[in-house]
Amino acid sequence: MDLFLLVLDLLGTFVFAISGATVGVRNRLDLFGVLVLSFAAATSGGIARDVLIGATPPVALVNWHYLAVACVAGLVTFHRYADIERLRNPVQLFDAMGLALFAVSGATKALEFGLGPVSATLLGMLTGIGGGIARDMLVARTPVVLQADLYAVAAMAGAAVVVAGHWLALPEAAVAVAGALICFGLRYMSIRHGWGLPVAQHRDP
Amino acid sequence: MDLFLLVLDLLGTFVFAISGATVGVRNRLDLFGVLVLSFAAATSGGIARDVLIGATPPVALVNWHYLAVACVAGLVTFHRYADIERLRNPVQLFDAMGLALFAVSGATKALEFGLGPVSATLLGMLTGIGGGIARDMLVARTPVVLQADLYAVAAMAGAAVVVAGHWLALPEAAVAVAGALICFGLRYMSIRHGWGLPVAQHRDP
Amino acid sequence: MDLFLLVLDLLGTFVFAISGATVGVRNRLDLFGVLVLSFAAATSGGIARDVLIGATPPVALVNWHYLAVACVAGLVTFHRYADIERLRNPVQLFDAMGLALFAVSGATKALEFGLGPVSATLLGMLTGIGGGIARDMLVARTPVVLQADLYAVAAMAGAAVVVAGHWLALPEAAVAVAGALICFGLRYMSIRHGWGLPVAQHRDP
Repeated sequence: MDLFLLVLDLLGTFVFAISGATVGVRNRLDLFGVLVLSFAAATSGGIARDVLIGATPPVALVNWHYLAVACVAGLVTFHRYADIERLRNPVQLFDAMGLALFAVSGATKALEFGLGPVSATLLGMLTGIGGGIARDMLVARTPVVLQADLYAVAAMAGAAVVVAGHWLALPEAAVAVAGALICFGLRYMSIRHGWGLPVAQHRDP
Repeated sequence: MDLFLLVLDLLGTFVFAISGATVGVRNRLDLFGVLVLSFAAATSGGIARDVLIGATPPVALVNWHYLAVACVAGLVTFHRYADIERLRNPVQLFDAMGLALFAVSGATKALEFGLGPVSATLLGMLTGIGGGIARDMLVARTPVVLQADLYAVAAMAGAAVVVAGHWLALPEAAVAVAGALICFGLRYMSIRHGWGLPVAQHRDP
Repeated sequence: MDLFLLVLDLLGTFVFAISGATVGVRNRLDLFGVLVLSFAAATSGGIARDVLIGATPPVALVNWHYLAVACVAGLVTFHRYADIERLRNPVQLFDAMGLALFAVSGATKALEFGLGPVSATLLGMLTGIGGGIARDMLVARTPVVLQADLYAVAAMAGAAVVVAGHWLALPEAAVAVAGALICFGLRYMSIRHGWGLPVAQHRDP
């Protein structure tokens, strides 16, 4: 099971790193800048979570697998940018899988550190969306995850399922799968069928 | 007294959350993005302070009142944006009150954690202005609190009063009130009478 | 030796603060905003490192020398902006010296806190480039250190030398000097002779 989780975690790291590298290439960063953005997009959510719960140094800095996976994803994107662009649709689905996994693992880790239900839900959401926020802030644009349809909401829903399951003492693995499916499902419906939340109406002054 | 402080703290959270939600609506974020910005504006200063002094997990994540108050403020702003816009002047005054309170409570908490006078003053200022910085960076603009008239200065002055009072062993409550009044007063004079600091003269190359 | 290191550290703080103040003046911040940017540019790298390794509160907040040096640099830049602009070339060299020093001291501190080779290299790099990233994000632009020629790379190379020397149990002072020279040398060759890394080719959609 632990190996299964590690594989999923590194898969999430891989797809988030691709999204970071893509943004880096589009903003004409050099090779190293692209790798920095890959690593930031893949690990900022988990690093922020670890700093906030006091689990320093963060696992993404201590365990070199994260850096290696992010760098491979960054190098592939750098050298095969045209192919990645053509894959945009599959990448979106992988990204939704990464979001689901990070939201679930983030909430689980927060619960293990003794945080309450509200904090654990928030930290699960943050683990999922933190990488995308860091990626976009590094290239000075409003984070897409705050604008996109059901992105942060999906992460929070997945984290909330984990927290509720923990509270009800349900089996951990089943709850993790359910949370990940809820998160992925919401995000998928948003991508495929345009599900979204309202935007406030206002006239510009 | 503790209830009094909690009420003030949550009032500060409320008005800062309104400022975050207002920025979110103007940048056409969806409902959830607006709530994220409300929470970020209201709590980032305190969260940064808690992380920097090692008080993890931060109180704004552990105590659900902060999230609840920020969400209520965000929902109100989302649904009554036109009314909030019309209230801009009262909101600025509430914002100045929030700034004063956060600067004072931030410096007090830093002193309680054993930090020295310079650090405690800096952390009081950061507690006051951190939310506004996070809010503006999330929508990719230069933080208003770095440009606006006597904003960060007012926060630092309020925090410095608390630190000086602590050093002179004056009664804590009186010092807190004095610090808050100094901060609020400076900010008020800046809003009402245009007090400000010089801007460097330079020719663009 | 300790005095020597402190002098170098504060010299690095001074030149990084100048770079922050320069950006502040160009973005028409008021005097206080310029000082905040000076301090952020000079200390964010070290503060991020200290938070990530759990060494809270960060030394740059505890030791008032950092604040004092950053403020002096900010005030000088504010009042003598034209002179600083004319000095741009020497400032770039001082900045490269600061980068070298921070990368070496950051990696050394991470090793002292028991981090492994990959983490220590990353944290050395982050200590060197963190200030420049914070400075540019505060004025809402893509960090120059992610775009500029051999900036982050130079910091990582310097940190890697320190880590390798530690692993080989070589004398610490010699390793520190070697790491700093590698970092400075790479950055110097980039400034003087245009050394750089490739940028990915892509057609805009």
